[in-house]
Amino acid sequence: MIDFRPILFIVGILLSTLALAMTLPALADLVVDHPDWRVFASAAALTLFIGVALILSTRSATRRINLRQAFVLTALCWLVIPTFGALPFAFSALNMHYPDAFFEAMSGVTTTGSTVIVGLDQAAPGILLWRALLQWLGGIGIIAMAITVLPLLQVGGMQLFRMESSDKSEKAMPRTAQIAGWTGVIYLGLTLLCATLYWTAGMGGFDAVAHAMTTIATGGFSTHDTSFGFFGSAWIDTIAVTFMLLGSLPFVLYLRAIRGAPGSLWRDEQVRLFLAIVVIAVAVMTLYLHLKNGVEALSALRLASFNVVSVITGTGYATTDFGLWGGFAVALLFCMMFIGGCAGSTTCGLKVFRFQVLYAAANIQLRRLLQPNGVFIPYYNRKPISENVLASVMAFFFLFILCWAVLAIGLGFTGLDFLTAASGAASAIANVGPGLGDMIGPASNFADIPIAAKWMLAFGMLLGRLELFTILVLLMPSFWRA
Amino acid sequence: MIDFRPILFIVGILLSTLALAMTLPALADLVVDHPDWRVFASAAALTLFIGVALILSTRSATRRINLRQAFVLTALCWLVIPTFGALPFAFSALNMHYPDAFFEAMSGVTTTGSTVIVGLDQAAPGILLWRALLQWLGGIGIIAMAITVLPLLQVGGMQLFRMESSDKSEKAMPRTAQIAGWTGVIYLGLTLLCATLYWTAGMGGFDAVAHAMTTIATGGFSTHDTSFGFFGSAWIDTIAVTFMLLGSLPFVLYLRAIRGAPGSLWRDEQVRLFLAIVVIAVAVMTLYLHLKNGVEALSALRLASFNVVSVITGTGYATTDFGLWGGFAVALLFCMMFIGGCAGSTTCGLKVFRFQVLYAAANIQLRRLLQPNGVFIPYYNRKPISENVLASVMAFFFLFILCWAVLAIGLGFTGLDFLTAASGAASAIANVGPGLGDMIGPASNFADIPIAAKWMLAFGMLLGRLELFTILVLLMPSFWRA
Repeated sequence: MIDFRPILFIVGILLSTLALAMTLPALADLVVDHPDWRVFASAAALTLFIGVALILSTRSATRRINLRQAFVLTALCWLVIPTFGALPFAFSALNMHYPDAFFEAMSGVTTTGSTVIVGLDQAAPGILLWRALLQWLGGIGIIAMAITVLPLLQVGGMQLFRMESSDKSEKAMPRTAQIAGWTGVIYLGLTLLCATLYWTAGMGGFDAVAHAMTTIATGGFSTHDTSFGFFGSAWIDTIAVTFMLLGSLPFVLYLRAIRGAPGSLWRDEQVRLFLAIVVIAVAVMTLYLHLKNGVEALSALRLASFNVVSVITGTGYATTDFGLWGGFAVALLFCMMFIGGCAGSTTCGLKVFRFQVLYAAANIQLRRLLQPNGVFIPYYNRKPISENVLASVMAFFFLFILCWAVLAIGLGFTGLDFLTAASGAASAIANVGPGLGDMIGPASNFADIPIAAKWMLAFGMLLGRLELFTILVLLMPSFWRA
Repeated sequence: MIDFRPILFIVGILLSTLALAMTLPALADLVVDHPDWRVFASAAALTLFIGVALILSTRSATRRINLRQAFVLTALCWLVIPTFGALPFAFSALNMHYPDAFFEAMSGVTTTGSTVIVGLDQAAPGILLWRALLQWLGGIGIIAMAITVLPLLQVGGMQLFRMESSDKSEKAMPRTAQIAGWTGVIYLGLTLLCATLYWTAGMGGFDAVAHAMTTIATGGFSTHDTSFGFFGSAWIDTIAVTFMLLGSLPFVLYLRAIRGAPGSLWRDEQVRLFLAIVVIAVAVMTLYLHLKNGVEALSALRLASFNVVSVITGTGYATTDFGLWGGFAVALLFCMMFIGGCAGSTTCGLKVFRFQVLYAAANIQLRRLLQPNGVFIPYYNRKPISENVLASVMAFFFLFILCWAVLAIGLGFTGLDFLTAASGAASAIANVGPGLGDMIGPASNFADIPIAAKWMLAFGMLLGRLELFTILVLLMPSFWRA
């Protein structure tokens, strides 16, 4: 049997923190005298009450948790936050049904960015700030997890990113906790910088803060129904592209760069390949838009860079409906969804390092065909890849495609057409945001899809955000035995 | 440098055989006094001339070929046959452009079944027989390769199917050649049985033979534009379903069954899972058609079984446009395309055994999460899977998805819309036949797509048919060095 007390203790701390976060939108609504401030205040009170109750009722338990408990804890955290984070949506002036509210909160905290809310431009500042906050917290949450928990859980090759010192020694946890803390400071700093730049570029102060939070988190929630199309500013688009990219790089490397190793960012193979993919994709897309679709060169560059970066980083901001760009553009962007950014960033998707490991493995298989008895060693970042990591990454890839297929079939069953189902499933698991087609494409949103599909998509977002394994392991009967 | 002489010697033998095969449609056209008989006669003469020239000019070379030569030989065989097999299409009364003719021949010999010919019902018997023959020869060709060459080349996990005796001993090749020979007899026997049954069910004699050849080869070429919809007979549909399934099982097991081990078919894990997938998919699809689409129960069963089997076996016969069945049905059938049948059969796709290996690997990764130091051994058919096979299959899966994505993007570039590009790429690599959408769906054909797309699809068919590795290895610069 699993001892839930130390798990619930941490969940209690998390809920209390969430309750504190809810006071910010309450203040925002108070300032403009919008009645929703009561909603946030009550939601905060309820969340705080349950959080404190959990802490008090489990405070006597041991603080040590084992591997099994760590998996339950991880999944539970990312389930409990949207469950309570949905309360303000459900009780606010928007008057959303709970499934819709849960979908929105899950889409927020997983930094997906799919929305079911129509009429953002008329929404109260509290709700808009809450959406941005959920993404911002989700973003730093996943970075912290990628530094502390995921490498220890050995999820899908994340053991590659175990800190050298974190292996067995007693000092390991405090050190990684310290690193995670400093990463948080950098995250905050980048957010403030982004907000300032947005503001100087002409955004209103509130919009600048809200968008900065969802940009650096590569989340994609906007305060306007037309997303970044609302601003129509090349300068704002450029800032967004820059900070979406910054949000897609491994945050530990920023720390290392600040601490006197500025070359570590550029020497990292994952960073290099990611940026190379972005540059090539933007160049190809620009040429395509210019030559095939007849878009003026500079506009083509702007459209291509914004949308390619928005999709590959899994942000999901839109300036236009790229679904209308033709088969080549759509197919390319669809593949971008799966790629994602770097491990240790706020992005989701398969992540670049996994493609590097898979490529190395496939390359070796091809070379082995000619020298069946040859010994080939795959490398990642100038270090040999262990059998263990290799098998883990390959299994991750298989499960990713499998989960996508199952989710797409499930979505089809709720009545969605094939394109909507296939792209919606990909967008959810890769935490991108918009899908393809009239219904859930960049020019539309998720308001009108069936409720069953919303639950499925929310589950898909959770699955993708927690690198599949963390959730799938809980579904194995053997997990709960012994 | 690679010595091409022993390779060209075998290619010469193959071309001479192909020339002999061309005399059959010539005879068919002679019987009905259609002028196309001259086309077949001249094509046969030209092919025979080149074949014999190759044999004579290289007869002095050694007969032994090394690994590198074996790869070149395999690829060259499957390139040369459609190149010459296309001649009758190009010169016949159909008056096709050579790219169209090559597409049709490649689609034939790879048992894909995509067609660019409109007006099959009015076509001369010679051309119809030639299309059927190409598929029939392609079917037995791939079975023979799966027994003799592919396991030795260790392509994508095919080393699992190496005969126990075929390893190093001198007697190995004659034994496997003998097995391949007997398999050919079974193939012929099943074709004759299928033709007889079609005939007794009401097909004309010619149609019965032509369809029997493309059924057992899971090829999918029909003699009518409306494919099996033309006959509208439940009995004929049932025979087709039965023989498509028979064509999807490993042919060596038939041999073993005849030789006194009838249980070996049913004890084979791949066969069991394949049949289980088919039964479940048909059941689900029948329920869906009946309950959601309101199709009468027995009709639903007939439609579901025919189309599910036609797609999963990669045959590609159509009785109706399943693209109109709704998102669930389309998503399910789309996934079926990727699955394919059993290794050692005439089907393509990923093949069932690879899913079993991938599932075993993924399952072990999940179990390892809880016991990081545990030792887990994956099994296939009650035997442990070696690291080598595991890595090979996983690399195959990655390359399969990668090739699909690249092909889909390429097709999009020729101007095809996303759905057509994505489904066309999948259909080609998995050697299925029809895609999805108005343009290349089951109710249409490939006549109207751009020529560049036809070349790409033909390449995709070749790639899929030769299990990717055999072609990809030739694209590595290191293959041609040393």
